[in-house]
Amino acid sequence: MNDPLYTFFHPRGVAVLGASANPTKLSYGVLHNLVMHGYPGPIYPVNPKGGEILGLRVYPSVADVPDPVDLAVIVLPAAQVAGALEECGKRGIRHAVLIASGFGELGAQGKEEEERLRQVARTYGIRFIGPNCVGVLDTYVPIDTTFSRTMPGKGGIGLVSHSGAVCGGTMDWAAVVGVGFSRIISLGNQADVDIADALDSLAADPNTRVVAAYIEGLPDGRRFVEAARRLTARKPLVVLKAGRTPSGTRAVSSHTGALAGAEQAFLAACRRAGAIPVETLEEMVDAAIALAYRRPPRSLRIAILTNAGGPAAVGADHVDRHGMRLADLSPETQARLREVCPPGTMTGNPVDMLGGPQADHYAAALKVLLEAPEVDGVMTIFVPQAITPLYDVAVAVGRTAETAEKPVVCCISGGGGIRAAARALHTHSVPHYLTPCRAAFGLGALWKYAHIRETRPPDPEPPPDLDRERVCALLEGR
Amino acid sequence: MNDPLYTFFHPRGVAVLGASANPTKLSYGVLHNLVMHGYPGPIYPVNPKGGEILGLRVYPSVADVPDPVDLAVIVLPAAQVAGALEECGKRGIRHAVLIASGFGELGAQGKEEEERLRQVARTYGIRFIGPNCVGVLDTYVPIDTTFSRTMPGKGGIGLVSHSGAVCGGTMDWAAVVGVGFSRIISLGNQADVDIADALDSLAADPNTRVVAAYIEGLPDGRRFVEAARRLTARKPLVVLKAGRTPSGTRAVSSHTGALAGAEQAFLAACRRAGAIPVETLEEMVDAAIALAYRRPPRSLRIAILTNAGGPAAVGADHVDRHGMRLADLSPETQARLREVCPPGTMTGNPVDMLGGPQADHYAAALKVLLEAPEVDGVMTIFVPQAITPLYDVAVAVGRTAETAEKPVVCCISGGGGIRAAARALHTHSVPHYLTPCRAAFGLGALWKYAHIRETRPPDPEPPPDLDRERVCALLEGR
Repeated sequence: MNDPLYTFFHPRGVAVLGASANPTKLSYGVLHNLVMHGYPGPIYPVNPKGGEILGLRVYPSVADVPDPVDLAVIVLPAAQVAGALEECGKRGIRHAVLIASGFGELGAQGKEEEERLRQVARTYGIRFIGPNCVGVLDTYVPIDTTFSRTMPGKGGIGLVSHSGAVCGGTMDWAAVVGVGFSRIISLGNQADVDIADALDSLAADPNTRVVAAYIEGLPDGRRFVEAARRLTARKPLVVLKAGRTPSGTRAVSSHTGALAGAEQAFLAACRRAGAIPVETLEEMVDAAIALAYRRPPRSLRIAILTNAGGPAAVGADHVDRHGMRLADLSPETQARLREVCPPGTMTGNPVDMLGGPQADHYAAALKVLLEAPEVDGVMTIFVPQAITPLYDVAVAVGRTAETAEKPVVCCISGGGGIRAAARALHTHSVPHYLTPCRAAFGLGALWKYAHIRETRPPDPEPPPDLDRERVCALLEGR
Repeated sequence: MNDPLYTFFHPRGVAVLGASANPTKLSYGVLHNLVMHGYPGPIYPVNPKGGEILGLRVYPSVADVPDPVDLAVIVLPAAQVAGALEECGKRGIRHAVLIASGFGELGAQGKEEEERLRQVARTYGIRFIGPNCVGVLDTYVPIDTTFSRTMPGKGGIGLVSHSGAVCGGTMDWAAVVGVGFSRIISLGNQADVDIADALDSLAADPNTRVVAAYIEGLPDGRRFVEAARRLTARKPLVVLKAGRTPSGTRAVSSHTGALAGAEQAFLAACRRAGAIPVETLEEMVDAAIALAYRRPPRSLRIAILTNAGGPAAVGADHVDRHGMRLADLSPETQARLREVCPPGTMTGNPVDMLGGPQADHYAAALKVLLEAPEVDGVMTIFVPQAITPLYDVAVAVGRTAETAEKPVVCCISGGGGIRAAARALHTHSVPHYLTPCRAAFGLGALWKYAHIRETRPPDPEPPPDLDRERVCALLEGR
C-alpha cells in the first residue's frame, strides 16, 4: 500500500514561508519545532526581510531557496496564501501545509478563496494540507511542522483531526502521562488532502498501530468509508464525529439541519467501515491507548485484581456494559492466588487483596491470573494508600504484563501524584486509566475490535445498494 | 427535620479505642485527623498501654475516660470489636464508628458477627456506623474521624458511600482542584446506620447543598426511596449504584444473580425518589459540582463561548444529548458581542473568538451572553495557547459568572497546569471540567434537576401498588 502523504513526512527539505524571529509568532513556533524536534533535512526560512533565525539563513523569497525542497509550510495571513502557494508551485515545490485560518469556515467568500487555492494546486500539481490547520508531525522521522508547545514521544497512535485544538489537547495530555504517537495530522478545512488520504497514509505507515480520528465534515462519505475499510483490514480505527446532533451540526457548520439524521448514518458508516465509534474525547483517547498497547482478548472473560471493593464493583458493572463478563476462577487458580496474595484475600472474582497488598503481591497475583486458562484479560485496580508506593505497583504490574498475550489494563486513581505511575505503565505497554469505568472502556474497545475482526464482511465489497446511497448522502449532508 | 446522625457530627467528646502511637497505623491516622483537622471537643485515646499520643493522655480503658464523651471510634481488629462496643455501652457512649473489616463482606460467619454487633447495640441503645468503613467527617464543625490523608475544604457537597475507596478517591481529587464538601459519610457494611439514615442526615444539614451517593447494597429498598424522596424535596441527589449488571452484582456480593434485573428497578427507584442516576464515578463528581455551585437553568437554551471550534462542536453535540440545545442569539446580542470580542469572532452560537482572545474578552463576552434573554446557561471553553494565561481566563470567567442567576460551566483542558485555574473557578462557584463532554454533562445534571423539580409527583405518596412492590423486591434482591 502506498502512502499518499509520504512526502509530507519525508521531504528532502522544508521551506517556511512567513518565517519570523518573534517567538510569540506561529511561524517562529513552526521553525522552532522543525529545528528542535530533530528534522534531519535542510530547513529554509523565507521572509523578505532576510537575516537569520535560530541560526538558519533567511531567504528573501521561495524562488531563492536552494535544492532540495519538497515541502512548504506557509504561515502567512489568509490573503497572501494563494500567492505564496503559486510561488511554491513555480519553484517546483509539490507539497504544502497551509496554517492560516479565514477560509471556508467563514462562509461563502471563504469557500471561494479555498477554490482559488485548489486552482493553484491543480495548475502546479501541488497537494496541500489545510488551510486552518496546525500542521503535521511524525515522531519517527522525526518531523514536526506544527507550532504546538509539546512534541509527543514515539508510539503507536496515529491521530488525524479536523480540529487543531483536539490535536493540541491530546498532545498535552500525552506528554504528561507518557503516551506516544506515530503521526499527528491536523487536516483543518481539508480543501485538498482529506480524511480519506490521511487514513490511507496511516494505513501505510509501519509505525502506526491504531488510528484515532476526530471528524467534523465529510464532504465525500463514500471515499471515507472506503479508506476506512482499507485501514481496518490492517489496524483498528477509533472515530469521534462531531456534528451528529442538531446543536452539534450547527456548531460544525452554519447549514443548520443539513446533517439532521447524521447520527444513524455515521453509526452505519462505522459498521460498514469496521471502525469503532466513540462519543467523547475521553473515549477516543481511552480506546486508542488500549488498542495501541494491547492485543484483543480471545474471549470475553475478565478478571479484576484490586485492593478496594467499591471501584472493583463499578469496574465489574462496566465490564458487563461493554459486552464482557467476570471470569469464573477455577479452584486451582484460587488456590494459587491464596499462595501468593496477602492473608484474607478474597480469591473469587474480583480478586480483592483488601488494604495491605504490596507491589510484589500485585505482580504475583497478576501472573497467576494471566496464566489461568479461564481468564482472557485482566483489569488491575490500585487505590493509593499510605503503605504501598503507587509507582512500585505500576512497575510491578507493567513488568508482569509486558510480554503477556492477554490484555491487561490498569486503573490507578489519584491526583497529580499519578503521573510517574502512568508513565511507568505506558513504558511497559499497559494502558493507565484514572477510573475503573474508563479502564473497562479500554478493555471494551479491545473486545469490540476482536468482534469487528471476526465479523468483517468479505472483500471485495458488494455492489452499492439503496441503503448505502442513503448513508453516503446523509454523511455528506445531502 | 431532625438529623438522625447529629451526634456523630457534634459529639461532646470522642474516644478512640485502639489508639496507637505508630504513624503507620490507621488508629494513629484517626487521632491525627481529629487533632489536626480541628475537632473542638476533647479527644480521648484508649489503649491498655497508656502513655501519650500527639500530646493527648492515653486512657487504659474506655471505662476510665472522663465525661463528656458521646462518640467512640473503634479501631480494633474484628474479633475485639463487639467486646469494645459493649464496653462503650457500659460507659454510656451511644454512638460508635467501627473501622475494622472482616464482617458481613466475608460471608455467613461474618454476617453472624455483625448480628452480634447489632445485639450489643440494641442492648445499650447504641447507634453505630460500619463496620468496614473509613469514618465520617464534617468540614464545618469541624470533625474528621477518618484516617484519610487529605481533608477537603468546606463546600456544599455531602458524600455518602458504601465504599471507603470511593470516599478517599473523591477527597483526593477534591483537594487538588479545590472542591469543597460539607460532610462525608463512609457507611461500610451499614449493619446499623444505613443509607436512608445518611440521606435524612444530609437533608437536615444546612451546609449540604447537594448529595452524592455511591451505593452497593440496599437491604431495604423502600426505606431508601422514602428517605431519598424526603431529601429531594429540598436538594438534589445524585446516585451511582454498583451491582446493576450480572458482573457488578457478583462483585458486590457472592449471591450471584440475586439482583439480576436490578438495573431497571434502580432506575425506577430513582424516578420515584426524584434522584439523578449516573453511570460512572466521573459522572457522579461532574453532576455534584454543577449542582453544588449553580442553580438550574430556566429553560434549555445554551450558549457556548470558545476559542476553538472542535471542542465547541463536541460540546454542542453533548448539550443536545443531554436534552438541551444551542440558543439562537438575537441580532442585538450578536451586535453587542461584536463590540467586545476580538475582530473576526464568529458571533453565531458557538461564539468562537478564534485564536487570540484575552481574559478581558472572555469576561465581556460572557457578560453579554448572561444578559441575553434568549440564553439560559453558558458553557465557556478555553483551550490553552501561548498568548493568554489560563489562570487569568479562569479568574475572568469566575468573577463574571459568580453572581449570575444563570448557570455557567467552564471547560479548560490541559495537564497539571490546570489546577490553579480549576481552583480559581471553584472559588467563584463555577464548576471546572477538563473536557467539553463533561462540561455538558454538568449542565445536563442541572437541567435534569430543573425537570425533576417541575415534574415531582405530589406528596403524600400514593398507596403502594404492585409495581412499587416489585421495584422494592428487586432492589432488595428478593
